[in-house]
Amino acid sequence: MTDITPSDSLLAAFWAYERALMANDLETLDRLFAPGPRTLRGDAGGVLIGHDAISAFRLGRGGAPERTVPVVQVHWIDHDNALVVAITQPSTGGRGQQTQLWAKTDAGWVVRAAHVTLPAPAIATATWRVVGSPLVAGASSGPLVGQTVAVKDLFEVAGFAVGAGVPAYLAEQGPAAGTAPEVEALLSAGASVTGIAQTDEFAYSIAGRNVHYGTPPNPAVVGAIPGGSSSGPASAVATGQVTVGLGTDTGGSIRVPASYNGLWGLRTTHGAVSRSGLLPLAPSFDTVGWLTRDAATLAGAARVSLDLSAQSSVSPSFVVAPALTAQATDEVRNAFGAALADLGLADIHSIEVGDVDELFEAFRMTQATEAWASWGAWVDGHPGALGDDIAARFAFASAITEEQGLAAAAAFDSARGRLDALLGDRVLLLPSASSLAPSTTADPEEIERTRAGTLRLTCVAGLTGRPGLSVPALWVGRESSATDVPVGLGLVGPRFSDLALIELGATLAEALRRV
Amino acid sequence: MTDITPSDSLLAAFWAYERALMANDLETLDRLFAPGPRTLRGDAGGVLIGHDAISAFRLGRGGAPERTVPVVQVHWIDHDNALVVAITQPSTGGRGQQTQLWAKTDAGWVVRAAHVTLPAPAIATATWRVVGSPLVAGASSGPLVGQTVAVKDLFEVAGFAVGAGVPAYLAEQGPAAGTAPEVEALLSAGASVTGIAQTDEFAYSIAGRNVHYGTPPNPAVVGAIPGGSSSGPASAVATGQVTVGLGTDTGGSIRVPASYNGLWGLRTTHGAVSRSGLLPLAPSFDTVGWLTRDAATLAGAARVSLDLSAQSSVSPSFVVAPALTAQATDEVRNAFGAALADLGLADIHSIEVGDVDELFEAFRMTQATEAWASWGAWVDGHPGALGDDIAARFAFASAITEEQGLAAAAAFDSARGRLDALLGDRVLLLPSASSLAPSTTADPEEIERTRAGTLRLTCVAGLTGRPGLSVPALWVGRESSATDVPVGLGLVGPRFSDLALIELGATLAEALRRV
Repeated sequence: MTDITPSDSLLAAFWAYERALMANDLETLDRLFAPGPRTLRGDAGGVLIGHDAISAFRLGRGGAPERTVPVVQVHWIDHDNALVVAITQPSTGGRGQQTQLWAKTDAGWVVRAAHVTLPAPAIATATWRVVGSPLVAGASSGPLVGQTVAVKDLFEVAGFAVGAGVPAYLAEQGPAAGTAPEVEALLSAGASVTGIAQTDEFAYSIAGRNVHYGTPPNPAVVGAIPGGSSSGPASAVATGQVTVGLGTDTGGSIRVPASYNGLWGLRTTHGAVSRSGLLPLAPSFDTVGWLTRDAATLAGAARVSLDLSAQSSVSPSFVVAPALTAQATDEVRNAFGAALADLGLADIHSIEVGDVDELFEAFRMTQATEAWASWGAWVDGHPGALGDDIAARFAFASAITEEQGLAAAAAFDSARGRLDALLGDRVLLLPSASSLAPSTTADPEEIERTRAGTLRLTCVAGLTGRPGLSVPALWVGRESSATDVPVGLGLVGPRFSDLALIELGATLAEALRRV
Repeated sequence: MTDITPSDSLLAAFWAYERALMANDLETLDRLFAPGPRTLRGDAGGVLIGHDAISAFRLGRGGAPERTVPVVQVHWIDHDNALVVAITQPSTGGRGQQTQLWAKTDAGWVVRAAHVTLPAPAIATATWRVVGSPLVAGASSGPLVGQTVAVKDLFEVAGFAVGAGVPAYLAEQGPAAGTAPEVEALLSAGASVTGIAQTDEFAYSIAGRNVHYGTPPNPAVVGAIPGGSSSGPASAVATGQVTVGLGTDTGGSIRVPASYNGLWGLRTTHGAVSRSGLLPLAPSFDTVGWLTRDAATLAGAARVSLDLSAQSSVSPSFVVAPALTAQATDEVRNAFGAALADLGLADIHSIEVGDVDELFEAFRMTQATEAWASWGAWVDGHPGALGDDIAARFAFASAITEEQGLAAAAAFDSARGRLDALLGDRVLLLPSASSLAPSTTADPEEIERTRAGTLRLTCVAGLTGRPGLSVPALWVGRESSATDVPVGLGLVGPRFSDLALIELGATLAEALRRV
């Protein structure tokens, strides 16, 4: 019998891990990572904390890319501890690195911490469809010089087709002859366009998952969905790839990804920014807006895009709507309540918005009716072109009768009138989303539950055409996350108070920072 | 006095390191990394081995990006050893990770190994000008389905301007109306174009450094230049971002980056592939070709691009030219000699090519004369538009008199005739480059010395219009590199033996693998 030296048994464990990785043998991989909440594993997507989080990640990944390991360097610390650095060579080219801290336990050698680098792809297809350095250069002077823009793949950019997150649709499009005025406004102010960023299919979702292109990363919540449908612009801003995401918001498509990624996001007053050169979803609700990492950049983008003469001021007169706040999870509601208390707003006026389900239904039925008017013919002619969830949404829309459509329009009118009377010139405060960003491995029921809650919150701005701002000012601690998890503080202001709302949001954020 | 616990002193060292990093205090950074050849530091660019290599890297980098460190997790191993994992937050957004193995020594706490992840940019501007997912889709069937192409920024791609590595030139161009036939050949065979990749300015260099866009990484030799002028395509293939690099080779612009990055690279027979839709440098020498990670992919790209009826076979009758081989460094010459011995070719026929400087001069003067004819007017009209080295090359070209030009043409004719007579139908074996890939921090004299040696090797194919293949079959061990460093085994075959030459190269590579 051969005498096993510590080195032999460590390398045996190292290679057993490597074999298990290549075979996607989850049981062995789980066994070779130390149990407990301190074990960690990081890669370009972020750091996962705790054995369970790492295990869930592996389950969702479905196997690691094929590779060989040309170099293994062991840095011994003592007989029971070593750092093993491996250079990895994916079969698809390039080199990677894997650094693991191994410890010998009663159960054998296990990894306490791992750090993995893989070769970067030419383009992160989940986030981007096309990128350039830059893709379109902006004016050489102007207030936005130095700013870089991710354009949601719904806007026309001269020379490029519009894809709307649907490859079968993209394949039928020719290059756009012109550039949408919303894009042009940023370019003429000196910003450059870095690229065209992904969206949920036809923007008809707030999840940020695209069955064709994948799910852009959410750097604020490792392993969570980014929210949508402005998923690509949001992720590009959150990961630092650009400073401005140009998006759209019909039912929450800017505010929800802003909330999930810890960004500033503005849905502008309905009609305040041109929608020319922009694909529609539901024109009664469709708005243009921006996602940024700070208030000043958001204000800069808004200022060059809005008709300033139409903008109005806003007074810091706040209200809350308990029936809306109640849609949020406990942790979001608690964070929202704590922020109000910190701001000295715990006792502000409450309004009774009535039956929230009814509000949501007025929004949802009108949205679906208009979405079908926008895309029904195309969807009908392209069976199988859409992911299951979006296809189901269009199927629902297709079944809406004329009578139901008319009833929805009436409900929309009545809801708008009632909400306008209730809100007046005041600013509604509410959570931007009903929950923190759900995990990419969350089951469909959980995604649907958060969607239902969130749309009930976001539909107030939709129904009233009012601007909606999401301020990254609420934070929730979580054991499995190294950093606090964001959720947006939502502000819905009077129509055409867009710029004033950003300023107000910045004041609130600053006050909360000082607490 | 406060009693310093081990934890305090470790964290003090950790934060001292962080402060030194932000201040680019190289002396402190050097002191806080363990001395010796085993210390390592890895990031997306690869793993640096040894304190000296890490120190040189920091010197060349000129400071790390500004960041904060929201999370520090210490994994204690014992009182004198700990792994410190930090989550970093660049001021430009996104999150990173830094993993460090610290040890307490007589000189205090030092880092034995570090692994760093920074947020990935939207586009690696040193490698790419534009990328898409894909940028241009290929035919849905054909022999190259599944292959992805990086197109050197000299070829027309419909809808995109040609930039030639020169921003001032790019700014004056409109989108190309059509796609160059060399690109079209790959697309119709089913390959898709991932993007347009960077080149040295007007392709007039073999270094692979572009003063405007940066230096694409060489994953085979961490911290080394990739070689040029097909630098972007080469790096994109070597890092696994695409499977095919479409390049050009006037004086070595495919063979040199192939050699430096450990790739297959073919410079085709002069005139065998159309140069329509391709910017010229020196038309008497300009050729099209490809860079790949394996021989089969190279043969696939060549087969759909060449006129097969014009292709001829080649007999495995090899010669060497001692005067050429002598241009290489000792380590390259030794690796070349060892490979010949391993192939049983140590005693093959030697040819006397005569004065190598004279051959080079005939090449260089003709190339410069033609380069000036191609670009002189533009260069004259745009002072300051080019980097110093390329500008100096054009300045030299501009000073060539008509008499000198005529003399160069005569020397070119005579060299071609003499070399053709010497080589006949045989295959010349030689190193693809005179040296391994020089470091990005090498001084200009070293870069110029390797350039002078390499161009003396590569000019034989240029002068004769013969195809030149670089086979990644020679490897040199280096202490500062975790893996062996590549240099190409060069084959120069009879004109129109392109495909046969790839096959012959594959046979040699296979034989060397079996040794």
